[in-house]
Amino acid sequence: MDVFDAIRGRRSHRAFKRDRVEFEKIDQILDAAQWAPSPANNQPWEFIVVSGSDARMRLIELSEQARKEGFVELHGFSFVRPVPYGADESPKSDLPPSDYSLSFLKNVPVMIAVVGNPEPTVRPSQVERVHDGYKYACSAAIQNMLLAAEALGLGSLWFTLFDRDLLNRFLGIDPKKHLIAIVCIGYPVAAPPSPGRYPLTTKVRRIE
Amino acid sequence: MDVFDAIRGRRSHRAFKRDRVEFEKIDQILDAAQWAPSPANNQPWEFIVVSGSDARMRLIELSEQARKEGFVELHGFSFVRPVPYGADESPKSDLPPSDYSLSFLKNVPVMIAVVGNPEPTVRPSQVERVHDGYKYACSAAIQNMLLAAEALGLGSLWFTLFDRDLLNRFLGIDPKKHLIAIVCIGYPVAAPPSPGRYPLTTKVRRIE
Repeated sequence: MDVFDAIRGRRSHRAFKRDRVEFEKIDQILDAAQWAPSPANNQPWEFIVVSGSDARMRLIELSEQARKEGFVELHGFSFVRPVPYGADESPKSDLPPSDYSLSFLKNVPVMIAVVGNPEPTVRPSQVERVHDGYKYACSAAIQNMLLAAEALGLGSLWFTLFDRDLLNRFLGIDPKKHLIAIVCIGYPVAAPPSPGRYPLTTKVRRIE
Repeated sequence: MDVFDAIRGRRSHRAFKRDRVEFEKIDQILDAAQWAPSPANNQPWEFIVVSGSDARMRLIELSEQARKEGFVELHGFSFVRPVPYGADESPKSDLPPSDYSLSFLKNVPVMIAVVGNPEPTVRPSQVERVHDGYKYACSAAIQNMLLAAEALGLGSLWFTLFDRDLLNRFLGIDPKKHLIAIVCIGYPVAAPPSPGRYPLTTKVRRIE
């Protein structure tokens, strides 16, 4: 598939067929992830492929629990209770995750947890890490995964509605590492319509 | 270009021809950026295209100044002086940026600053942002840019060797926003060899 078609055609899928995803395709997606750039090529990512139905169901239960408790992270935005409410704001309206259905997860055949390693693996004694290189690199890797899935006829979702502590324990993730996202993958029922984009002119400034 | 060829063929380029890059190609790269996913499709990115030679030279001067002062950020890793040296570590060896030549920047015809907006633009009263969604989204957008450049026969570099404060002032970036990276783009002299990747087996765990 042409790279521009993959970039423009990729959608956030929430409706999947129950069909199994071929191992070869998962490996192609993981290989694509690995070719992302990273600081000094330190490749600060790890992948946990969750495909068994018991494990997937447990992962879904844990996400559901996190959603109900209102202590969850939605695509990188955290919802924390209590939140600092203004006088004119209703606490209930501040907890959209309770309205966010996770039932679609039951049909996701493969979930890939992407874990970032904040420890630089290159020249560790020379680097004082106070920043986000590993998060940038993992995000680039995830984008490669989504594009690879699109090219292979699969749908995907960059999912972060989870409680990191619960998932760290369940997936056996070293607490020094950082769960960035769960990439959901499966054969889509249909491509959702595009939610659109702002006009480029509103996003671009030029300095000649 | 096939998406897998773009993903595997992309390199971090540091040798560029002085040839002008067509406006149309820059717009194709910016359009590709916009089709990245983002939290609730809030599109938390802005792009500053620096193509004039005066502005580029000033940007290079500022990067050079940051490098010399040892207060710089290299691809998401920050080098900060003073760093907490161990008894057996030499301070000098902790400042690799001083050995890192920026002379290649003089031949980069276009630099695109990618700026992230931490403010959620969707449901702001419902979201208590404490996390990194905008950084993830901007990184996915940058990866799209690098792949688009590759497909258009251009070379690119995800560049972060800069002092954010200096560049914020020069580029007129709202201090509430966050300069994520500068994407260098131009016609490459030659494709650098691949630095390789770790075997996938060392990076993947499977839970059935």
